[in-house]
Amino acid sequence: MPEKPKSVVLLSGGMDSCVCAAIANQTHQLAFLHASYGQLTEAREHRAFRQIADHYNVRERLVIRLDSFAKIGGSALTDSRIGVPESGEALAPHAGIPVTYVPFRNAHFLSAATTWAEVIGASAIFIGAVAEDSSGYPDCRPEYYRAFEEVIRIGTRPETHIEIITPVIAMRKSEIVRRGAELGAPLQFTWSCYQFEDAACGACDSCRLRLRAFAEAGIPDPIAYRTRVAP
Amino acid sequence: MPEKPKSVVLLSGGMDSCVCAAIANQTHQLAFLHASYGQLTEAREHRAFRQIADHYNVRERLVIRLDSFAKIGGSALTDSRIGVPESGEALAPHAGIPVTYVPFRNAHFLSAATTWAEVIGASAIFIGAVAEDSSGYPDCRPEYYRAFEEVIRIGTRPETHIEIITPVIAMRKSEIVRRGAELGAPLQFTWSCYQFEDAACGACDSCRLRLRAFAEAGIPDPIAYRTRVAP
Repeated sequence: MPEKPKSVVLLSGGMDSCVCAAIANQTHQLAFLHASYGQLTEAREHRAFRQIADHYNVRERLVIRLDSFAKIGGSALTDSRIGVPESGEALAPHAGIPVTYVPFRNAHFLSAATTWAEVIGASAIFIGAVAEDSSGYPDCRPEYYRAFEEVIRIGTRPETHIEIITPVIAMRKSEIVRRGAELGAPLQFTWSCYQFEDAACGACDSCRLRLRAFAEAGIPDPIAYRTRVAP
Repeated sequence: MPEKPKSVVLLSGGMDSCVCAAIANQTHQLAFLHASYGQLTEAREHRAFRQIADHYNVRERLVIRLDSFAKIGGSALTDSRIGVPESGEALAPHAGIPVTYVPFRNAHFLSAATTWAEVIGASAIFIGAVAEDSSGYPDCRPEYYRAFEEVIRIGTRPETHIEIITPVIAMRKSEIVRRGAELGAPLQFTWSCYQFEDAACGACDSCRLRLRAFAEAGIPDPIAYRTRVAP
């Protein structure tokens, strides 16, 4: 059997990226990339990354640090002067772009993934972006990834060919949970909470989206919560 | 008179970015962004950045650190196992992509510039990329910047409008020197050498391109060299 092609998987440590990795694992060799960028739960997400990488026995791992977001500010995730909302803001349809939006964040991640992919000879980048049923971030839409692929095509060596694969982009969060469960994705290691690192807050938008997804999927969420706001 | 629009200028501290800043200064307010990424002459370039920023009295400055290039390797500029060439490689026409190419580097810089521009309300990003008479890097071509603008358009808030301006992209290096001299750009503060930080080596590809450019322009290069290889 021919060797599987190599892929760089952007793994934040959250549920979406974990299921994305489980999907990538079916067709590709895995190289995992994680970025710390001064988000409140940075250490906890890094632990989730390591546990998921161990689970899949991934040898090629890259952890980078981006200091620009914390220096620039402008998002509740990286600027301690802006509070993380517990209003359920992100669950309302057409609520606009929430304060947890980190401006143009995914381009930083994709740039690092492309540099690494070009050097290690990976032909795909997997990213667990979710367009609908998500947070309304402008850099989570399919057309964004097609445009970025064009930048990769023009901006790398002529012999380099890298596609961006977004396997969960059109799924509802509950479908992502079900798909992860089917594939045996280690959801017990994932972390979604924007606020806390010991037990999830259960109240921030990210916890609410996650709890609603597991509830809709009819699957118990394996991680610990301080409280659970009814979704 | 209406206030000038605000721009983010990517300022490496080299000659091209300095002249790019001088051009931006004619039409825009300046905010200067510099990235350290483990290049051999990082400290010297940072000093050039500060001196040029002082010259233009720029208050909004952002210095970021990208650790991914040094971790990934693959370029003579950030990987000490690959030697910086002194062969004049970059001066030969159609020489291909040299070992000083840092894979997909400009996307990292443009991503940081876009994040910052969106937060501070800048409507333009200036970058001193040079397509011809340069080093054959794939991310220095006009179509690359048009593709990246599309990513910005899709990937930022609907009300955000940011154009990428590449004022020196079609110039020969000697024209850049002349234009800089006309505009009073502080070329004495710029740094181009890939290897040394006290006096420029005069032998690496970047020094050779610079020396040739000043020679063709008929303007003396104001910085100190250890030796000067005839261009």
